[in-house]
Amino acid sequence: MARVLTGIQSSGRPHLGNILGAVIPAIELSKDPKNECLFFIADLHSLTTLKDGGVRDAYVRAIAATWLAFGFDAEANILWRQSRVPAHTELAWYLNCFTPYPMLANAHSFKDKSAQLEDVNAGLFTYPVLMSADILLYGANWVPVGKDQKQHLEIARDIASSFNRQVGEELLVMPEARIDERIMTIPGTDGRKMSKSYHNYLDIFLPENELKKSVKKIVSDSTPLEAPKNPDTDITFQLFSLIADAAQIEEMRARYLAGGYGYGHAKQELLDIILEKYKEPRRIFDYYMTETAELEAILEKGEARAREAAEPVLSKVRSKLGYR
Amino acid sequence: MARVLTGIQSSGRPHLGNILGAVIPAIELSKDPKNECLFFIADLHSLTTLKDGGVRDAYVRAIAATWLAFGFDAEANILWRQSRVPAHTELAWYLNCFTPYPMLANAHSFKDKSAQLEDVNAGLFTYPVLMSADILLYGANWVPVGKDQKQHLEIARDIASSFNRQVGEELLVMPEARIDERIMTIPGTDGRKMSKSYHNYLDIFLPENELKKSVKKIVSDSTPLEAPKNPDTDITFQLFSLIADAAQIEEMRARYLAGGYGYGHAKQELLDIILEKYKEPRRIFDYYMTETAELEAILEKGEARAREAAEPVLSKVRSKLGYR
Repeated sequence: MARVLTGIQSSGRPHLGNILGAVIPAIELSKDPKNECLFFIADLHSLTTLKDGGVRDAYVRAIAATWLAFGFDAEANILWRQSRVPAHTELAWYLNCFTPYPMLANAHSFKDKSAQLEDVNAGLFTYPVLMSADILLYGANWVPVGKDQKQHLEIARDIASSFNRQVGEELLVMPEARIDERIMTIPGTDGRKMSKSYHNYLDIFLPENELKKSVKKIVSDSTPLEAPKNPDTDITFQLFSLIADAAQIEEMRARYLAGGYGYGHAKQELLDIILEKYKEPRRIFDYYMTETAELEAILEKGEARAREAAEPVLSKVRSKLGYR
Repeated sequence: MARVLTGIQSSGRPHLGNILGAVIPAIELSKDPKNECLFFIADLHSLTTLKDGGVRDAYVRAIAATWLAFGFDAEANILWRQSRVPAHTELAWYLNCFTPYPMLANAHSFKDKSAQLEDVNAGLFTYPVLMSADILLYGANWVPVGKDQKQHLEIARDIASSFNRQVGEELLVMPEARIDERIMTIPGTDGRKMSKSYHNYLDIFLPENELKKSVKKIVSDSTPLEAPKNPDTDITFQLFSLIADAAQIEEMRARYLAGGYGYGHAKQELLDIILEKYKEPRRIFDYYMTETAELEAILEKGEARAREAAEPVLSKVRSKLGYR
């Protein structure tokens, strides 16, 4: 059985791009009985860029509610807030002392910002070490990462090697990256990748009237209503295709090609299918955002299990370094 | 009442220089009822240079035994191992995210090593942040520091300012350095400052025959036994003067000036007075080094109190940043 560890970014409320590109595939992966899946909300990492505590807390609760809304099984797998397991920062300190300074100075994430050093904080500089601690603490075998995170996983492996060599024992498990080449890029309302920073996302948990406003903003060309339209270059059609079933997609494609069917109609159909297909997730999301004590209880249960899961590595490291 | 925080280095077993220069004066300070004194053994900091767990553990126990041997009152004050209070590394992570990278890159402790960057680890680079966490966690008003540590205290103040400004509240107490200008420099057996790294120290807890060997190594000039000698330039006399009372010092001074009194005699007197004056500390030290469970119990009691003392600041910081 392979232990698979996934860190969930916590710098925003999940949007359709996150849900289709990350949440649903990860939940699918977690249903494979060959995997033991550990998921944590990386709320300590988010402090490198986000200082507002109220906003962070709201994001974290929305993330947990989203995962539960899409069928995450909190009994079979573990979901926790990184900040609630003190072993993450404890191990990060130990690993700092085994991480050569140049390894961090050469990381892309730091180099990209080296022209504006006064804006770089020490958390940003050392976050590959915290990320290594996140992974190594649980003896993870596999870490699904995007291509942009590949170097950070290399750093985690290098730190593990450096630690094992210096303590003279293969104590830390060497993690492997599982680069998902198939990761879908979900288009945003302006055609670029859907992203919080581009403000081009659809938040499917919004009330219907607000969601409708976002859908209406989807960019389209100026082909008149009567004329036939090319579905393959239209963003509304692309988004619809990611949600609808094959028959529905074919039907809409035919309407585009026939003409007499406007982008406004397509947008209404997209809104309708979002509301229909995600009716249950929307309900569950709202439920957990209201029943905060219940959500808190689920997370705390996960955190107790995460602390337990971290214990074997933490004990071995402490003992090896003379701390217990 | 002022809260005074002292970090105790843990990169070696305490020698006579540490005891006369740091341990005894700090214990004196802790007896002043105007001060609430907190003492921690900085065993997390020592990992930046010392990787061997067994050696670290032995040092830490020897340090605790030394403080107790010299009359540290573990009921009136708090003594703990930094590594046993996870809030130190937790707060250090938070503070990392409020510490501009250039502040650390400009620290003397880093600049001094910048020619050999491959030997610098990330722990060494960020240790001013951990040190700031040590201080700010307990809302310390005063931190007694040597001149070489003055810049690190400035960094702690700068980090506290940066944090308070960004969270919009004077949450962290601004610590003040208490630079002790009177700090005694204790000469080592070769006349340079007594220091572990020069291998010129006297370990007063050694068995008598081993201690005798160290005392015999004290450097002296080649004045013949019969000739008068200058006590003021002789290391043995200087060390004797730091331990003996005024009458004993005058007596030895007279013998030096009279002649017919060799350095060997003076060294024997130095050994005798060490054994006599530190008879009780030697006994207590040996006791705690043998009764390890008792020493452990004292430290664990201090650690429970330290965790409690850290709670108010930790709670406020967590809550402000959205972690509770």
